[in-house]
Amino acid sequence: MTTTSPRPAAGPPPDVPAPGEPTASGPTPAGPAPSGPTPAGPTASVLLEALHRVLPADRIVIDPDVLQSLSTDEAEWAPAGVPALAVRARTEAEVAGVVRTAADLRVPLVPRGAGTGLSGGANAVDGGIVLDLSRMTAVRDIDPENLTCTVEPGVVNNDLKAAVAAQGLWYPPDPASAPWSTIGGNTATNAGGLCCLKYGVTRDYVLGLRAVVGGPAGYGTVARLGRRTAKGVAGDDLAGLMVGSEGTLGVITEVTLRLRPALTGVPRTVVGAFGRLVEAGRAVALVTRLGLAPSALELLDRTCLTAVQEWKHLGIEADAAVLLLARVDTPGDAGETEAAALAEAFDRAGALWAERSTDDVEAEALFDARRLAYPALERLGPVLTEDICVPRSRLPDMLGAIERIGREQRVRIATIAHAGDGNLHPLMLAEPGDDDARRRAQQAFEEMIDTAIGFGGTVTAEHGVGLLKRRGLVAELDPASLTLQRAIKDTLDPLHLFNPGKVF
Amino acid sequence: MTTTSPRPAAGPPPDVPAPGEPTASGPTPAGPAPSGPTPAGPTASVLLEALHRVLPADRIVIDPDVLQSLSTDEAEWAPAGVPALAVRARTEAEVAGVVRTAADLRVPLVPRGAGTGLSGGANAVDGGIVLDLSRMTAVRDIDPENLTCTVEPGVVNNDLKAAVAAQGLWYPPDPASAPWSTIGGNTATNAGGLCCLKYGVTRDYVLGLRAVVGGPAGYGTVARLGRRTAKGVAGDDLAGLMVGSEGTLGVITEVTLRLRPALTGVPRTVVGAFGRLVEAGRAVALVTRLGLAPSALELLDRTCLTAVQEWKHLGIEADAAVLLLARVDTPGDAGETEAAALAEAFDRAGALWAERSTDDVEAEALFDARRLAYPALERLGPVLTEDICVPRSRLPDMLGAIERIGREQRVRIATIAHAGDGNLHPLMLAEPGDDDARRRAQQAFEEMIDTAIGFGGTVTAEHGVGLLKRRGLVAELDPASLTLQRAIKDTLDPLHLFNPGKVF
Repeated sequence: MTTTSPRPAAGPPPDVPAPGEPTASGPTPAGPAPSGPTPAGPTASVLLEALHRVLPADRIVIDPDVLQSLSTDEAEWAPAGVPALAVRARTEAEVAGVVRTAADLRVPLVPRGAGTGLSGGANAVDGGIVLDLSRMTAVRDIDPENLTCTVEPGVVNNDLKAAVAAQGLWYPPDPASAPWSTIGGNTATNAGGLCCLKYGVTRDYVLGLRAVVGGPAGYGTVARLGRRTAKGVAGDDLAGLMVGSEGTLGVITEVTLRLRPALTGVPRTVVGAFGRLVEAGRAVALVTRLGLAPSALELLDRTCLTAVQEWKHLGIEADAAVLLLARVDTPGDAGETEAAALAEAFDRAGALWAERSTDDVEAEALFDARRLAYPALERLGPVLTEDICVPRSRLPDMLGAIERIGREQRVRIATIAHAGDGNLHPLMLAEPGDDDARRRAQQAFEEMIDTAIGFGGTVTAEHGVGLLKRRGLVAELDPASLTLQRAIKDTLDPLHLFNPGKVF
Repeated sequence: MTTTSPRPAAGPPPDVPAPGEPTASGPTPAGPAPSGPTPAGPTASVLLEALHRVLPADRIVIDPDVLQSLSTDEAEWAPAGVPALAVRARTEAEVAGVVRTAADLRVPLVPRGAGTGLSGGANAVDGGIVLDLSRMTAVRDIDPENLTCTVEPGVVNNDLKAAVAAQGLWYPPDPASAPWSTIGGNTATNAGGLCCLKYGVTRDYVLGLRAVVGGPAGYGTVARLGRRTAKGVAGDDLAGLMVGSEGTLGVITEVTLRLRPALTGVPRTVVGAFGRLVEAGRAVALVTRLGLAPSALELLDRTCLTAVQEWKHLGIEADAAVLLLARVDTPGDAGETEAAALAEAFDRAGALWAERSTDDVEAEALFDARRLAYPALERLGPVLTEDICVPRSRLPDMLGAIERIGREQRVRIATIAHAGDGNLHPLMLAEPGDDDARRRAQQAFEEMIDTAIGFGGTVTAEHGVGLLKRRGLVAELDPASLTLQRAIKDTLDPLHLFNPGKVF
């Protein structure tokens, strides 16, 4: 433990209300004014002065334009508050200093990486501190002998992939944001991606981490959680608890990740074209039932394909309503057998055509189209992104419901999906300025959430709760589970300073 | 939520001392006498009467011999208390009734499955309730379409394997106790096994669970945690927090598990014989460095082989000091290549001989020997089981240290290991009644723990902390991590009724 704060643990005050939730309102210079131990929040100048005592001046951002750019993530429809300032921390000690200061002055803070989140989890809160960790980019250690690496939170996912690839290793989690998103953000949201179908999500790779925590350990204390070994059950799995907690339990300052040996050989791609979403859903259910294990099984519809083609000219013809893209990385003859079985399953489920791609360039273009679908659609207007996940057998039903909801609410919906996981991303589009379309899209968004819950699904598979899924969270979870989660939050962050108003 | 208790949440009393830790002392009929809300613990008759109001009479065990058999797990060297009685629950509602009664009367309870634990985690506490869940054996649901199953906690691991195999599915976690140990116990301890090298531990298969909890939800409340979908990040990972918490946060009453399609084909076995432990350790480190991914990579030494041979007559000649057993389940030609590469790695590391087994019966006999090593050694006298795990590159160093410690302390040590994970089980043997040998074995046990920590390892890879690793836990973990863990325990079990005295 590195206790960077000399203060003893701040005993939980009995009734600290949560600081102000993010709003779209104007600045509130006096901060969120939590009642409780201090009569009122500090003025911006008091906060600034206090931070200047623990940080080099160049870490602190007060320029309104820069501050604005650090105040939201990619969830365009989520409200964001106006922060007092931002800190671009460069070391764990600086993070600890910020947390200590925030606790002293009772100012909430919002940790952020690259800001590529899609649920508003990194949106600023009024009068709070935005704690930008994207400058903490050290790769501390890559260990081929133990298949691990240890990195600071600001390391970009694809940069890490490249660094470990140079040593014959592979870090699998591959959210579509991988060119920009950071390992800290990936960890805080338990990011998924394409290959988690076969290789698991971020949670499956986090062995240990360091975080600046609060509550019983004292705000500003660095805690080392988890381990470096392949296995371990010494104590409760607090590293696991931090993964996916969206910055509400502390600030992650270092992550130790499990790695895999690099894959050898070129993967095979199998493409299936379908006349209807529901038929593609049936194909996915069949693939699961047959026990096939592609390393990716992605769905994208014609709207997505067209949007990417118009933007990037990848040479893809959108000749079907829906495409399924499967990748097989099993080496050798067994991989051949698996690829053939996938194409046959697509055919049996009613594909217009299904074939093993023999053109590696074309195959790569199709997966590029999948990765680029979201930014391509963003060019068309504000996008509201769904992230539901249903049991795979309910995929045809859920895809049917998406079509129905789109019709009923007159919402233009483009659907991409990590179909093999049952994880769907219907993207709702609205023309800028069309308030009615926006309202209808939001209605469709909530209807999809309720439908997914009804099918035994979840409201968020990989994007996180943030702000957009807070109603859905309460609708999905058992009240006793929520009670326990709130109790843990109150215990580990009694002052409600870590990303308040998010998740709960 | 199913709130089975009408009582509102029991507010955490500020300073409840932990009830009496397990001791080897005689009965304390008045119970552990926690101070706090009630002035004293109940008499046995008051407890009995209260339980008779919520349970059928045949669930309650007071016969001293039966009670004795339910008071310990397989950790022969761990102290056990004398419980007031045991309950053999058959339903979740009965479990809830027991927890409610325990809370009303402030009586601690120790949940247990088959009692195959090796750390004393299921050992009774004086005056407490032993809550035996081994009669809750319903397999509620096996779902081949979604690759999941939902079972009660008393289902035996191998019984579950057989049930899902009948539907073409596979539940991988395979602790050596699989013929006897239960899914509830496996979940509470996050059990590992042979195949976790490639397929992960229990934690990687638990999607969701139901548990009877306490604290802020009210003792006796059933909480549904986790999910049924392949992915999900809705709220903090409380199901993950329960896995491996050794019954200290609540009583698991149902588990939903991820399954895999059954493997096809016969796995290949590669055997390497080595003159010294350290050389076998080098071979394992080399296998990792080469990126080979066997589905099992086990080590057993001559003492183990001889003990099994003398007991079971499997026809194994213990002609080397150490054997490494590797299994390759990659299908097709790639599997052939992998098996050949493993044999070559063994040779390069200095094997006396290394070869792909061409005799399936012999190969199976070798893995049987691995599985039977522990009971075979138990026939020779009390066994103290180590469960350290080191980064794989430190395996040669750790194996060298084990040899040294054994020499210095004059302790007979037999070593088996999930070597591919860096997880070692040196088994310390002492003649019954030889107190000095026992003392030296305990000294060796603690020295190995400290050595493993020094190598960046953990004190327990898969057996759990229970009673035997409590000192090691404190030595290993960051004090801030311990502080947070204790705070969570205090929050979720403010009366310290769930398996008190264990882990912490």
